[in-house]
Amino acid sequence: MGGDYAPGVCIEGAAQALYDFPQIHLVLVGHAEKLAYYMERYGIAGHKRVSVHHAESVVEMWEPSTTSLRGKRDSSISECARLLKAKEVDAMASPGHTGAIVAATKVLVRSLPGIDRPALGASLPRANGRFMLVDAGANTNCTARNLVEFALMGEVYTSFLYKMSRPRIGLLSVGGEDIKGNELTKSVFKALSEMPINFVGNVEGDSAFEDAADVVITDGFCGNVMLKTSEGLAKLVMHWMKLAFTRNPMRVTGAMLAKNAFKDLKSYGDSSEIGGAPLLGINGICIIGHGSSNPRAVRNAIRLAAECHEFGINEKITQRIKECEDILSTLH
Amino acid sequence: MGGDYAPGVCIEGAAQALYDFPQIHLVLVGHAEKLAYYMERYGIAGHKRVSVHHAESVVEMWEPSTTSLRGKRDSSISECARLLKAKEVDAMASPGHTGAIVAATKVLVRSLPGIDRPALGASLPRANGRFMLVDAGANTNCTARNLVEFALMGEVYTSFLYKMSRPRIGLLSVGGEDIKGNELTKSVFKALSEMPINFVGNVEGDSAFEDAADVVITDGFCGNVMLKTSEGLAKLVMHWMKLAFTRNPMRVTGAMLAKNAFKDLKSYGDSSEIGGAPLLGINGICIIGHGSSNPRAVRNAIRLAAECHEFGINEKITQRIKECEDILSTLH
Repeated sequence: MGGDYAPGVCIEGAAQALYDFPQIHLVLVGHAEKLAYYMERYGIAGHKRVSVHHAESVVEMWEPSTTSLRGKRDSSISECARLLKAKEVDAMASPGHTGAIVAATKVLVRSLPGIDRPALGASLPRANGRFMLVDAGANTNCTARNLVEFALMGEVYTSFLYKMSRPRIGLLSVGGEDIKGNELTKSVFKALSEMPINFVGNVEGDSAFEDAADVVITDGFCGNVMLKTSEGLAKLVMHWMKLAFTRNPMRVTGAMLAKNAFKDLKSYGDSSEIGGAPLLGINGICIIGHGSSNPRAVRNAIRLAAECHEFGINEKITQRIKECEDILSTLH
Repeated sequence: MGGDYAPGVCIEGAAQALYDFPQIHLVLVGHAEKLAYYMERYGIAGHKRVSVHHAESVVEMWEPSTTSLRGKRDSSISECARLLKAKEVDAMASPGHTGAIVAATKVLVRSLPGIDRPALGASLPRANGRFMLVDAGANTNCTARNLVEFALMGEVYTSFLYKMSRPRIGLLSVGGEDIKGNELTKSVFKALSEMPINFVGNVEGDSAFEDAADVVITDGFCGNVMLKTSEGLAKLVMHWMKLAFTRNPMRVTGAMLAKNAFKDLKSYGDSSEIGGAPLLGINGICIIGHGSSNPRAVRNAIRLAAECHEFGINEKITQRIKECEDILSTLH
């Protein structure tokens, strides 16, 4: 039921996932009547690998995050979190209200042993591939311990998603040198330097897009600012391109000749191939997609949820946290 | 002496400013012999509106910010700050080490009465014009009072630079609703709501680039992340464009036909017309340019310095702070 174009894109994406991934069974959580209409429309009504779990209400995108816990405890997000908690499902995915999903899963599903705060791991593009931003917006107030947890969870997830060993961990700050930063980053810098990880020091908002690190660690406030700023600027440049390439007939002709270049440009920045950002550290798999997800992104969010489960990401995170508990326990 | 291409671009920019703005007198602060060579080269040796103030050393871009106060107290930045303090100059401009300029001016020149922390006001592009980001990186740790001061200083500067009355003030946060944010932004939100300013509430990293507010207020850590992220992403998109438009002969032909579109695109994002960001709240005018400033940007930073002085920005800031002292005094 979540996202800007629900439930249409969700069901269309679910249909694609059913077709492409024969190993998965889907439980669609939402208003049964609405879902039935769209399931009919996208040809998955009565499909043997789909079931429906009814949820009476929906957390709307403009409602406060706590709506999934108070007020609308029968929302699709709350119901989905309960299914995850009861292990009736192995993983959940939603392009719905990020804050409400975070709140519901944190309270109903709880975090992994040793994890104080689950965090969003968002994949962002750079010149030669992608990098991981943790936390992309789950926690607006963070401690040093939180950021160190983010580093360990980001390490595990990045090594899985980008298929790399020992990903380079960077700390988002305002200067490359270790003396640069605010009180929080300075203490995190010290802690990360002492850990058995591939810590490459501070990275900045610009160098992150230039291959400075594979995992960029920050609190959820700054992480969200970084994520949204990159989206805002990408949109602005697209607007400028439309303006510049339609100003006179010669430019329009040029743009037509090079029209596949525009397609390429779109694909370079496209995040729908990843599908969404996992809420790392939850005691269950939870993938949160962008509110503006298209069916392809929904399909891929479902794939990512399945893959994270198959990979056993939570067992690996728990293991990694255990290995570093000595250092973690010294942090607050 | 500052910036990535010093002192060449500085002197070339200074020469342009001398030619274009007959009302200004320039004092070039730096190593006299080096300056003499470049002044000869750019035809301003012996110019009647130029003088040279010798400074023995230079704060290099990779040195710590405190270098201008310890270690290299005879640096061009330190000397420049002393001239400003002694009122031997009305304003200073530099594309040098931002942190070192902030440190030197804060300690040597001091802030305006009622101002706790001076802040950088950086002008960023959006679809229909530009917006102002305060603080863009002068203060990594901020209090609620600091951010409210930034709002008032940003209001004065924005109304001058963009020639608008009652600019819309927005608070950078992670959601549009007033309940969204971290501890700092929540208390700042409350204070700004009670002030005699045109406060439009929270703005996000993406909506800032879509005309959500004319002044975007944040702490210097997040502000710097936002500024650098926008630079990093703009660079990334340019890289992608090069890639996409050179992939085959047809695209190259199209790009050639539309080549002025690329020129337009560059100009849309170009910040050199502004010249630099003032360190608002210093008891003197101080314009800090980007390290990669070209001569045009240096010329415009000098123009901005002169205009801020003529406008009497500091008198207006002091006045505005006085008007709001009742509310400010309740904040910490």
